[in-house]
Amino acid sequence: MADENSIFIGGKPFMNYVTGVVMQFTTKGAEEVIVKARGKFISRAVDVAEVSAKRFLAEQVQVKGIKIDSEDFENKEGREVRVSSIEITLGKK
Amino acid sequence: MADENSIFIGGKPFMNYVTGVVMQFTTKGAEEVIVKARGKFISRAVDVAEVSAKRFLAEQVQVKGIKIDSEDFENKEGREVRVSSIEITLGKK
Repeated sequence: MADENSIFIGGKPFMNYVTGVVMQFTTKGAEEVIVKARGKFISRAVDVAEVSAKRFLAEQVQVKGIKIDSEDFENKEGREVRVSSIEITLGKK
Repeated sequence: MADENSIFIGGKPFMNYVTGVVMQFTTKGAEEVIVKARGKFISRAVDVAEVSAKRFLAEQVQVKGIKIDSEDFENKEGREVRVSSIEITLGKK
């Protein structure tokens, strides 16, 4: 899947992301959009996916798959930290 | 699946939940454990599932399925609020 179909969730206003998802499906004609997030933004990614699929694109789009993962890395203090991530694939019905 | 195999993630110390998951599989011999959360605790549920499956029960347990959902309800002020939820099923390999 091309990267342009991914929406990476961060700290911008919530509706920016929902609009981004909706535009991918409508004006850009995407068949699938992947909503991605790491760490504390995972909850928000689920919100974005649910609001997009159930409120704005109801009858048209559904959750096609969900993957979670995590990776270890060293933070600035040299401590090992595990950060989780999620990828939610939305697709046309 | 019986309710006793579900772990509902909230604001308790992180390792309480990981220990809960590990104990279900080890001392209680569960074949599957479902990690559940709503709202802001969704990120934490992913962390609990990842740490349980990859650090404490590596080689034994893996993510078998993930579901997300959301429901509308009215808050105290009479405003409609949508709250997302997640269910992560961990199972023996």
